[in-house]
Amino acid sequence: MAEFSATDCAHMAHALHLAERGVYTAHPNPMVGCVLVRDGDVVGEGWHKLAGAAHAEINALNAAGDKASGATVYVTLEPCSHHGKTPPCVDALLKAGVAEVVVGLEDPNPKVNGRGLELLAGAGIQTRVGLMRSDVEKLLRGFVSRVTRNQPFVRLKMASSLDGCIAMSTGESQWITGAQARSDVQRLRARSGAIMTGIGTVLADDPSLTVRDSSLDTAGKQPMRVVLDKDLRMPLSAEMLALPGKTIVYCSDDKNQAALVDVGAEVVRVDSDNGMVDAKAVLGDLGDRKVNDVLVEAGPTLAGSLIADELVDELVIYQSPHIMGSETIGMFRTPCWTELADRRALDITDVRRVGTDTRITARLEG
Amino acid sequence: MAEFSATDCAHMAHALHLAERGVYTAHPNPMVGCVLVRDGDVVGEGWHKLAGAAHAEINALNAAGDKASGATVYVTLEPCSHHGKTPPCVDALLKAGVAEVVVGLEDPNPKVNGRGLELLAGAGIQTRVGLMRSDVEKLLRGFVSRVTRNQPFVRLKMASSLDGCIAMSTGESQWITGAQARSDVQRLRARSGAIMTGIGTVLADDPSLTVRDSSLDTAGKQPMRVVLDKDLRMPLSAEMLALPGKTIVYCSDDKNQAALVDVGAEVVRVDSDNGMVDAKAVLGDLGDRKVNDVLVEAGPTLAGSLIADELVDELVIYQSPHIMGSETIGMFRTPCWTELADRRALDITDVRRVGTDTRITARLEG
Repeated sequence: MAEFSATDCAHMAHALHLAERGVYTAHPNPMVGCVLVRDGDVVGEGWHKLAGAAHAEINALNAAGDKASGATVYVTLEPCSHHGKTPPCVDALLKAGVAEVVVGLEDPNPKVNGRGLELLAGAGIQTRVGLMRSDVEKLLRGFVSRVTRNQPFVRLKMASSLDGCIAMSTGESQWITGAQARSDVQRLRARSGAIMTGIGTVLADDPSLTVRDSSLDTAGKQPMRVVLDKDLRMPLSAEMLALPGKTIVYCSDDKNQAALVDVGAEVVRVDSDNGMVDAKAVLGDLGDRKVNDVLVEAGPTLAGSLIADELVDELVIYQSPHIMGSETIGMFRTPCWTELADRRALDITDVRRVGTDTRITARLEG
Repeated sequence: MAEFSATDCAHMAHALHLAERGVYTAHPNPMVGCVLVRDGDVVGEGWHKLAGAAHAEINALNAAGDKASGATVYVTLEPCSHHGKTPPCVDALLKAGVAEVVVGLEDPNPKVNGRGLELLAGAGIQTRVGLMRSDVEKLLRGFVSRVTRNQPFVRLKMASSLDGCIAMSTGESQWITGAQARSDVQRLRARSGAIMTGIGTVLADDPSLTVRDSSLDTAGKQPMRVVLDKDLRMPLSAEMLALPGKTIVYCSDDKNQAALVDVGAEVVRVDSDNGMVDAKAVLGDLGDRKVNDVLVEAGPTLAGSLIADELVDELVIYQSPHIMGSETIGMFRTPCWTELADRRALDITDVRRVGTDTRITARLEG
């Protein structure tokens, strides 16, 4: 087990902050931050902005120039050893003559998986691994989820009243939560590779599911829109089909797909499960498409089904300070849960005010 | 407008803390605390424990003895000028020769209402009023509610899951919240003059509605149990009828009251309103009976009706970190609320963890 000093921690925390700058742009690549320190001074820092652009280590080495020689490298994720869109970082670190490499998390990607660290150690570079590992894992949980289980990290967002209602029985629901909560959702969208909804929500609300907040630098990227639509009822006039970015419609019966494809949608056939598109298969396909994080913005049917099927990793509830009463629609449709023992426990990880609403973030306990 | 120093504030805060010691015992009297200060030293303190026992001022004067002469009196509530169960405090203060009286809140009781302050001023005592008034008002809101509008302060307690469910559709509901939340409810009961429920809850759960936590010093008092039971369906075998303390059953049809009276209940007839016992009339009667605070522990029918009729002053929700789903019963039955505009806004005044649950306290906005 490697030992770390308070100074080590401070530099790794700095590298983590740098990594986070890529939150809206780095995906499907992991967010990575890197700090080079020589004789107690930070001589270079870098982070990874976009797939295809330089990795964090390269940006830090470039910033340090000659001062990289003999430096200690703090990098949140194990340096890559393989040729991807850019040459391996391990080679560049060796060439620059760094003295030591301190890593937060071993790269969970099977293509790397300790190989980068081995190469460094083999070349006589001192390495230490595991500094602030859990913070790095938390930051990269979408990436880790995809490369380890070929399934994106699934975040389900709901907006409800304090008594758990998402709409009136008539469907009236604009707006349950306030402007600041809606603007917070823009940030959740921007950090996601795909936004998933059900055909019911498309037919009822015709949402755009795009990032519209121009203050968020997404490098022009829009998350994919993903619609679960067993019988392919997706209207050709759906708003999202006319907007920048890609829309994928997952169905179990694709015989009417031609017209949808004509208007720019991709139609993918997957099996159905319990009368709905098999969401697990959809998530697998999104994993193949290198989606790290999926944000689900759906009605109670899809939300309840994903929860009951244990496909939700994190729940984000925007709870407005209102009572809506009984002539309403609840958050989750779960026809199979008939006893109190069927309820699902949550591990609440964060609660905070967002404007006039309360945002509750929770992991679903196994 | 009187002026107050930081030292004044510190002494009044001390008096407020003393007042709070009577939270489980002073009602129907107000909680009052009193501090006597001479030459910068606290020479006496007192609080009011029980109706019939000495008032806070008298306890403080007794503690100070000769040192009361020339002292400044900090008292949360205006001293009484009338003969109640004990002689007037104003007379005692004058007799002790205090120099000044600093008061938090004028007594809202029409029997006092400034008269105590007038008598003190008339006798040449300096008086200042309004120090930490809003804190005193908050502490005494039950008392203030009763003496100013002849209606108790109504606190509605609910236990729900994060998605707003209070039971499964089958009625199964033990336990939605954890042991610490239930123990917190014991404290809410102990500070209330009456606990109100509906006949539906009695028939379904047969609750005792008593204070059972022996660590709470209630001086042996139990809050009244109040059941709203239009057609007098109250079972003679109901648990609460066999327990210490008084049970009042409010009905609109009292022709079968004799048997209930035989087993110790009091039966009161009030008009019905919208197919239910008129809750406003019940609260008026409880005001006449000197109940300052009512805690409602009811099902969605009575809870929804009280909310819709704007009879609830404060809502206390114990929210458990669970999803219960759709085969459940919601918090409030409100058949009249059909549009989003009908929803009721809440002013959330406190949110905190109680064990594994979250307790949300809110005022209902008008």
